[in-house]
Amino acid sequence: MAVSGSRRDFLRAVGVAGGAGMLYQTMGALGLAPVPAANAAPYRAPRPGDLTLTGRAAGRVLILGAGIAGLATAYELGKAGYDCRILEAKDRPGGRNWTVRNGTTLTDLDGRRQTAAFSDGQYMNAGPARLPQSHVTLDYCRELGVPLEVFANANANAYIHHRNNPATGGRPVRWRTAKADVYGYVSELLAKATDRGALDKELTAEDKERLLAFLQGFGAIQGRADDWAYTGTDRRGYGVEPGAAFEEGTELGPPPALSDVIASGVGQRFSFEFGYDQAMLMFQPVGGMDAIPRALARAIGPDRIVYGARASRVTDLADGAEVTYTDARGRVRTERADFVVAAVPPMVMARIEHNLGADVTAALKYPVANPVGKIGLEYRRRWWETDEHIYGGITPTDSDLSTIWYPSYGYQGRRGTLIGYYNFGANASAYGALTHAEREARALERGVAIHGETYRSELAHSFSVAWHRTPHIEGGWVSWPSQSGPEYRLLNQPAGHVHFAGDWLSHAIAWQHGAFTSARKVVTDIHERVMAG
Amino acid sequence: MAVSGSRRDFLRAVGVAGGAGMLYQTMGALGLAPVPAANAAPYRAPRPGDLTLTGRAAGRVLILGAGIAGLATAYELGKAGYDCRILEAKDRPGGRNWTVRNGTTLTDLDGRRQTAAFSDGQYMNAGPARLPQSHVTLDYCRELGVPLEVFANANANAYIHHRNNPATGGRPVRWRTAKADVYGYVSELLAKATDRGALDKELTAEDKERLLAFLQGFGAIQGRADDWAYTGTDRRGYGVEPGAAFEEGTELGPPPALSDVIASGVGQRFSFEFGYDQAMLMFQPVGGMDAIPRALARAIGPDRIVYGARASRVTDLADGAEVTYTDARGRVRTERADFVVAAVPPMVMARIEHNLGADVTAALKYPVANPVGKIGLEYRRRWWETDEHIYGGITPTDSDLSTIWYPSYGYQGRRGTLIGYYNFGANASAYGALTHAEREARALERGVAIHGETYRSELAHSFSVAWHRTPHIEGGWVSWPSQSGPEYRLLNQPAGHVHFAGDWLSHAIAWQHGAFTSARKVVTDIHERVMAG
Repeated sequence: MAVSGSRRDFLRAVGVAGGAGMLYQTMGALGLAPVPAANAAPYRAPRPGDLTLTGRAAGRVLILGAGIAGLATAYELGKAGYDCRILEAKDRPGGRNWTVRNGTTLTDLDGRRQTAAFSDGQYMNAGPARLPQSHVTLDYCRELGVPLEVFANANANAYIHHRNNPATGGRPVRWRTAKADVYGYVSELLAKATDRGALDKELTAEDKERLLAFLQGFGAIQGRADDWAYTGTDRRGYGVEPGAAFEEGTELGPPPALSDVIASGVGQRFSFEFGYDQAMLMFQPVGGMDAIPRALARAIGPDRIVYGARASRVTDLADGAEVTYTDARGRVRTERADFVVAAVPPMVMARIEHNLGADVTAALKYPVANPVGKIGLEYRRRWWETDEHIYGGITPTDSDLSTIWYPSYGYQGRRGTLIGYYNFGANASAYGALTHAEREARALERGVAIHGETYRSELAHSFSVAWHRTPHIEGGWVSWPSQSGPEYRLLNQPAGHVHFAGDWLSHAIAWQHGAFTSARKVVTDIHERVMAG
Repeated sequence: MAVSGSRRDFLRAVGVAGGAGMLYQTMGALGLAPVPAANAAPYRAPRPGDLTLTGRAAGRVLILGAGIAGLATAYELGKAGYDCRILEAKDRPGGRNWTVRNGTTLTDLDGRRQTAAFSDGQYMNAGPARLPQSHVTLDYCRELGVPLEVFANANANAYIHHRNNPATGGRPVRWRTAKADVYGYVSELLAKATDRGALDKELTAEDKERLLAFLQGFGAIQGRADDWAYTGTDRRGYGVEPGAAFEEGTELGPPPALSDVIASGVGQRFSFEFGYDQAMLMFQPVGGMDAIPRALARAIGPDRIVYGARASRVTDLADGAEVTYTDARGRVRTERADFVVAAVPPMVMARIEHNLGADVTAALKYPVANPVGKIGLEYRRRWWETDEHIYGGITPTDSDLSTIWYPSYGYQGRRGTLIGYYNFGANASAYGALTHAEREARALERGVAIHGETYRSELAHSFSVAWHRTPHIEGGWVSWPSQSGPEYRLLNQPAGHVHFAGDWLSHAIAWQHGAFTSARKVVTDIHERVMAG
């Protein structure tokens, strides 16, 4: 995206202009963070005129995989009139972008079958669930008319559950309380050290006074006369809410001892929400994340997607490429195109026969698939809202659940669906090895330790996914041992007439933004070849 | 609200039970913050059986004011069959709970008239705009079927604008960038002091190692070998967003100098969102805050509210009370009831004739009305989303605007309505003294300094309110010089058969929660009198 005229005028007005490079640098140094990607190579979608005005034929493109990368490739190429066709092994678009509703089925690689029995209107986003404000995914939502609502990635009323938290006897603590105590003690300690002159090398007398003023507000600490002590604050919360007449409210307190707060480790959780990708506000499509692939599939034209098509061979040819696949009725077919875009996970692609060379096979096997698991727990009533005043957000735990997510939709409705675990690595492997019933039992046991027996007694339905055991997917996402080595470089170039696309070929792995931008890159590469040809 | 069975079971299960007092105390000390108000006197709405089973008559209640307190009084008393009638001077329910849409008019105390020309679907909540998770207002939304959505009270992508910020040359800085820098330097300083032994009196060796580990994550600082230096982090944001293939992104940086970050004062803004009442997540009714009074008015029955009725006299009688008022057609009427509830602002009530005594008049004049102003700015396009990636949230400034709010509804729609200022005190007085055109001009000038010329050029419509100059309201809210003195006590008791209600008679002033809980108190008081009678 180019800097808009008005934006440019504005910068000129404040006198920081002086050539684009200088301008951006200045904006950057100011922390202005204009529109991110302002000075990245702007993406320009292929247009019908590109071909018709030059007398070129649009050409045919076969795409493996109707995940976000595959769909976006067909969508963008389609804008210029390319004849795209997607071969998708599953019976739906979206890949890991998958919203589970009543009737959704899953048969995993171990042959275990689940059918979701969620109530009307209840769903879980089994794959991606949150959209940062800066990601191109939001631009696609705008372009495709997918309405958005806030995804609650952080909530002061959610808990942090560290089972060995000495400040709470192992009980969960609200984020607001944890923050008040950590910020309180951090402020007390830094104020004391500052006032004792321990930082005179770093701070001028003026810095010191300003810093002390900041710390008093930041930590809600006492003043110099009380040696900057942190003694609690209403930010921790109330046991009795302030209200009418003489009800002043009863603050929670007093705060636990400094040493216990430090030992609790709750502060380690805070930086999650400072993360560039994770900071609030975040968004989700209304009604389920799969609104995005469904909108893309509609825009592409449903007849351009062949479901139940399992590719078995990709062959690069002198003037194109062809794909051999088995269709939903078991017939083996071969289709030919000018280009093939392999928009499937590398571990899946690595097992498809091809003539692209041993180095391509080796490169496809280089990134490592990550085990990732999620369980959706539908409850008969939204007890987290009515009983605990938690309307959305996430409770991180130090148990193998990793996190519990409260739903960001259907507030105050009759029923609601939590994410009972969202975990990776060893925890996801452990849950993935269990049957669904065993996963549910374990998730409930851990959840009861946080929320009490309600967590078990009000459960209505559940559904779980282990992405690493899911056919045609085989992982939550991949990790590259190195993204600057020859393997990553190789797959970001075409192998003859075969291009690769996916979040795994980006610096936004596990985000739809990675898949979209990778698709745009491949679209640009193909279109440039066609225009040059 | 009583502690629910399941919650009690859970507490029993974890072995902290031992009598309610002890239990609550333990929960409080643990920072568990059960349901706030768990041990407050539970509210119990009057029920039809209360009267019918005891053979008592429900009685007639006249209520002055169809703000939240008046509406809630009629609603709750109505549950038991009381015959309530509300006299409202304006032509709508809600009081300060007021959503301005196309066609809404306002003639202020200075005779200035505005008619809103907002586009379809565009609105501004001129009064209350955010609901905390703990407030009883959410329970009323549930009970009344008012759907909720997130109100964005904080956004990492919004700005902080301090015009003398030496770290940015006076330019706005994103919250995420400001936080990264302040937390980075705070962590560096505290780590240095800790490692130098300046806090050995407060910290054990184990505390120190744990604190240093926390600070490394919290501030994204270097390690001991680099003397814990803060040198920047991707939390600050990116000038170029990470994306496909070889686009690793370009971090904003480097950070400004420590001294400039401290002098900028941006850190002073952070504690706003730690506030008990202001911490995210917060909520708003879908479609406008006035969904609450409209739902209450529907539940009460529209025929029970007399609009355009200006009370001129309240008379306490031996066995009831009466109100004299002028109706919408200019006729003077007197109505009699068993009780009168004065649910109007104290400064309005202070001018209504009454026979309740000079001490009541004096008490009504004791709280001080606060000037509060807001302007809604409708834009032809949502440039804050498309150009600046700000989807909701608030930019605080050190100018007389005080704050700019980006809308929490209609994301990615065609048009959008900002709050161009929301200010109090001297700033609100200054804007309130201007004509609407002058207010708009001043707001635009300030806003252009943050967002550039787009802030002026894309404007479509605007509407402003100065609550202190609004008839029958006369203030944003009140401040009591003391809420523990005789004046506050006096008005929280009935004066004969006249009771007072409103947020101004609570410890949640300026919140609808205060109005609702005050109404509940008065309802309980009246019902107890009736039941005792």
